[in-house]
Amino acid sequence: MKREEFVSWISQLQDQICRRIEQVDGHAQFREDLWERHGGGGGTTRVIAGGNVFEKGGVNISEVYGDMTDGIRTQLKIDGARFFACGLSLVIHPHSPMVPTVHANYRYFEVYNEAGAVTDCWFGGGADLTPCYLFDEDAVHFHLVHKSSCDQFDPVWYPLFKKQCDDYFVNTHRGNERRGIGGIFYDHLRPSAALQAGTLLQFAQSNGKAFIDAYLPIVELRMRLTYTDAQKHWQLIRRGRYVEFNLIHDRGTIFGLKSNGRTESILMSLPPEVRFEYDYQPLPGGEEARLQQILLSPKDWI
Amino acid sequence: MKREEFVSWISQLQDQICRRIEQVDGHAQFREDLWERHGGGGGTTRVIAGGNVFEKGGVNISEVYGDMTDGIRTQLKIDGARFFACGLSLVIHPHSPMVPTVHANYRYFEVYNEAGAVTDCWFGGGADLTPCYLFDEDAVHFHLVHKSSCDQFDPVWYPLFKKQCDDYFVNTHRGNERRGIGGIFYDHLRPSAALQAGTLLQFAQSNGKAFIDAYLPIVELRMRLTYTDAQKHWQLIRRGRYVEFNLIHDRGTIFGLKSNGRTESILMSLPPEVRFEYDYQPLPGGEEARLQQILLSPKDWI
Repeated sequence: MKREEFVSWISQLQDQICRRIEQVDGHAQFREDLWERHGGGGGTTRVIAGGNVFEKGGVNISEVYGDMTDGIRTQLKIDGARFFACGLSLVIHPHSPMVPTVHANYRYFEVYNEAGAVTDCWFGGGADLTPCYLFDEDAVHFHLVHKSSCDQFDPVWYPLFKKQCDDYFVNTHRGNERRGIGGIFYDHLRPSAALQAGTLLQFAQSNGKAFIDAYLPIVELRMRLTYTDAQKHWQLIRRGRYVEFNLIHDRGTIFGLKSNGRTESILMSLPPEVRFEYDYQPLPGGEEARLQQILLSPKDWI
Repeated sequence: MKREEFVSWISQLQDQICRRIEQVDGHAQFREDLWERHGGGGGTTRVIAGGNVFEKGGVNISEVYGDMTDGIRTQLKIDGARFFACGLSLVIHPHSPMVPTVHANYRYFEVYNEAGAVTDCWFGGGADLTPCYLFDEDAVHFHLVHKSSCDQFDPVWYPLFKKQCDDYFVNTHRGNERRGIGGIFYDHLRPSAALQAGTLLQFAQSNGKAFIDAYLPIVELRMRLTYTDAQKHWQLIRRGRYVEFNLIHDRGTIFGLKSNGRTESILMSLPPEVRFEYDYQPLPGGEEARLQQILLSPKDWI
């Protein structure tokens, strides 16, 4: 049963990621909240705040199931009597504007008919990086590690999932400015004769490992850099764009909030401190303007 | 023509409100941006920032018209060949947590057939107050001034529009917590034999005047109060809820952003500095918890 295997794996991955983040931070520890869903299932939310390195972060797993609701039917454009969904979702906001914010998500879905047979199932996931100050070599590293993970399974996946990531995390109301410098994003990966469910589970597991190898070395490389008040200010402005994407465009966030999901677990993704200024424009020629330009026209990093 | 009269009035009201706000602030002045809409019309955005009293605010007018788009058709659930819309919209965020944030909006809409005849028109508007620390007498005053304005036209309007306000500014994802302590909110007020367009224009004008009389005395009463870092922190948390409402639930904001409206003018409503903390709970028994309780069950202030 892929369902049990996936649930068991995301629980291990949550432990592993939280342990590594605590090690890198050296001070803060995750706080854990268990919650139950009315209708079936629940989750384990782990949040960290006020660390040496990490200002706010959450690494959450959930496993929800039950009767298909109209909301789920509409959102997923799919029919069925019952559903099962599980996943790990994380967002990490470091204090320093030199250390990028990161998001990752790995999920698995099953649909059942009245008789309880699985009529559909799919895997989804991805990871994307949101720097305020862009070190090109960090973007290359983040993409390279995820490309390596994809290439073990299918050489067409990385370019496809990289593009899907660039196409998804977009503030359309900001002239199609991207939330960050991308990564990979995939959804509705369904098992087939040529692509077994076991392989897709291994792909998820490979990506989970890739996330750790892609992100934490960047943190360790940049966490001791000094920064100015003006650079912190730029981070707060960029975080405003992060809030805008998550609340205006992110399908998972909006669906979760409007379908009676656990608000605190969903909104753990929001940055701790944010600024919204009217018509803020970075100075021409600076690092801030360079980042903004790249976010408007995503680059191929590899 | 009500259209020209309304446009002329909101332009005067914008001048009047901006002048009064600058007087109360005593330091900052509004900056003006003129913009044009592709397809017809445009607006005048006036923003203030970094004042003695006001941290960020915008008082905007716009007048847009042209061919009916699918977006407008769907949003307004109405048919027609062309449309005209104009309005004044304002949001003011003071520095001090002792001085409430305020929002107001007055708008007028016309729909035309192919021959250019007006086939439908309506007025909308309202004002609502969002304190972080609630002085009950301020809430009473704000409601009383708006009730007086309504009562001159129809005694059933204030209770109706007060309820509509309480029902609209709701963070449904926060257990139906209201954005603030309300005010009045009305929409689709259509002229009829018993209620002429001229009367509805006078009603809008009366409410515009009521806004000034309702809000600025509260600012002048509270702007010199001292406050602690903890009280400022509570304000930043409450501002997070303001952002959540505007980006997740406010129909005007979402429609504007998704229909290619002027992003900077729409998002001037967002507070300048904001905090999002996981599962933040005010201490039991304090002023913060009392406000939160009132926001969960709106009171009749009069």
